[in-house]
Amino acid sequence: MRKKYKNLIEDHILDYLPDIDHKSITLYESMKYSLTAGGKRIRPMLLLAAAEFTGCKIEEAIPYACAIEYIHTYSLIHDDLPAMDDDQLRRGQPTNHIIFGEAMAILAGDGLQSAAFEAMTKDLFLYFDNEDKLKKRIRAANEIIKGSGCRGIVAGQVADIESEDRACSGEMLDYIHLTKTAALIVAAVRAGAQLGGADAETLENLTIYAENLGLAFQIEDDILDVIGSEEEMGKKAGMDEAKKKSTYPALYGLEASQKKLMELTETAVDALASYYDNAEFFVKLAKDLATRGR
Amino acid sequence: MRKKYKNLIEDHILDYLPDIDHKSITLYESMKYSLTAGGKRIRPMLLLAAAEFTGCKIEEAIPYACAIEYIHTYSLIHDDLPAMDDDQLRRGQPTNHIIFGEAMAILAGDGLQSAAFEAMTKDLFLYFDNEDKLKKRIRAANEIIKGSGCRGIVAGQVADIESEDRACSGEMLDYIHLTKTAALIVAAVRAGAQLGGADAETLENLTIYAENLGLAFQIEDDILDVIGSEEEMGKKAGMDEAKKKSTYPALYGLEASQKKLMELTETAVDALASYYDNAEFFVKLAKDLATRGR
Repeated sequence: MRKKYKNLIEDHILDYLPDIDHKSITLYESMKYSLTAGGKRIRPMLLLAAAEFTGCKIEEAIPYACAIEYIHTYSLIHDDLPAMDDDQLRRGQPTNHIIFGEAMAILAGDGLQSAAFEAMTKDLFLYFDNEDKLKKRIRAANEIIKGSGCRGIVAGQVADIESEDRACSGEMLDYIHLTKTAALIVAAVRAGAQLGGADAETLENLTIYAENLGLAFQIEDDILDVIGSEEEMGKKAGMDEAKKKSTYPALYGLEASQKKLMELTETAVDALASYYDNAEFFVKLAKDLATRGR
Repeated sequence: MRKKYKNLIEDHILDYLPDIDHKSITLYESMKYSLTAGGKRIRPMLLLAAAEFTGCKIEEAIPYACAIEYIHTYSLIHDDLPAMDDDQLRRGQPTNHIIFGEAMAILAGDGLQSAAFEAMTKDLFLYFDNEDKLKKRIRAANEIIKGSGCRGIVAGQVADIESEDRACSGEMLDYIHLTKTAALIVAAVRAGAQLGGADAETLENLTIYAENLGLAFQIEDDILDVIGSEEEMGKKAGMDEAKKKSTYPALYGLEASQKKLMELTETAVDALASYYDNAEFFVKLAKDLATRGR
């Protein structure tokens, strides 16, 4: 299933970029570069899986899957900028501003955020004669917008940057992880579930799953920064410590972080226990992610 | 009328920022700073006027008026960044990154773009029981998204930056003006008209008006950069020439630029001639703008 979802995303990832005038071709090249730089596609996979899980035709969820990957990609491009995390390498390749320059990287990020919303809005017009599906899509778009905004990834990056070089409380660290990482993963799962018209209970269970998965995902990333190799991660190891980033391993130590990772994964998996084999994709994804950080 | 529209915007300009956690309070302060730094509010005024002109209750257009001002403000914050135009002064006040630093200015821009879409999406939920109004609002949101994206202001800023320090053709200059400035002015007017459910002919006439007004607006700005004072503009004069920006005065000379400004204003006004006094707001706005550059 994971292969099916991933292939769908790879096949369609450029489909929802607006037609761009040849005079702005560098903008297109810059957006395309980062969209095809080998991301794991976790968020759009989760969106497609949640849509299918709740009864939406998978083809009808693709614009939203691409939109959430556009949002994720824009946030990475901006996070990597010299004024932010100043990263030269991402997924084993030079970051966007290293190739295209800072100005174009800022604009590629801006353009991708806008392209995400355009993909979703254009999709709404296809359902003008189907009120039920139209409303489901508006709800899905709303989930993605909430996760991408000032209570989601933007808030997370603000808190992350403001916490650099200073002592960070556990509460603040949780807030950073919830906004910077978990918010968009929750948005992906909830958007998919809204497309499928999930009932309140399923939506709630999927939300618990996604929130715990998102937190686990961030802790795993921080653990890998300590114990992983550059080859494995596609970026330099030990960067969090060098930049005095607030991380779980820095605050609680490696062992406690690995324990927390296991607990979060368990809570995530438990939230979907009542769905048995139907939730297999979600369960396997959570367990596989946890294994990387062990 | 202009006063009524402007007051409405000033009264509501912060209403559609998402509730932000106190941990991200600097993000809120940074967005608020640029939103209340004394903009002329041309775009949201045009949106409100077009909405009222075509029969939409003005109160119902306010979220869209604020959304387009959020988009415009985000684009100014990003345009002013050191990697872009590197401006220290805007509307007589220090630019966002001078006060809040580069990282926060990038994030404030990102957050404002997202807040604009959130304002519009949240508004859709209010009309779930009114299919006609719901569709009008989706059309309005679509106009704003088109003007703000990769065929609108983002494309314009890309072309503008790529044209610096090199000879620029008249065709390229027109493209820059159409995307960088006219696109969002067209979007404002069309979005308002979509809210009011304008017929095809009125939509077309308003579009001609807005496109010509938008081009006139940019040429007037470029003329003021040559003949205006710092006090008048709220930013340093002569900056376009210093940065070797492609402008109308640079390419065609001052006199030809002033002639072009008059022609565009006339075409804009003519497009609305058949509406007589009902279009007074639009006609007066165009004429007043043109006078500044004479």
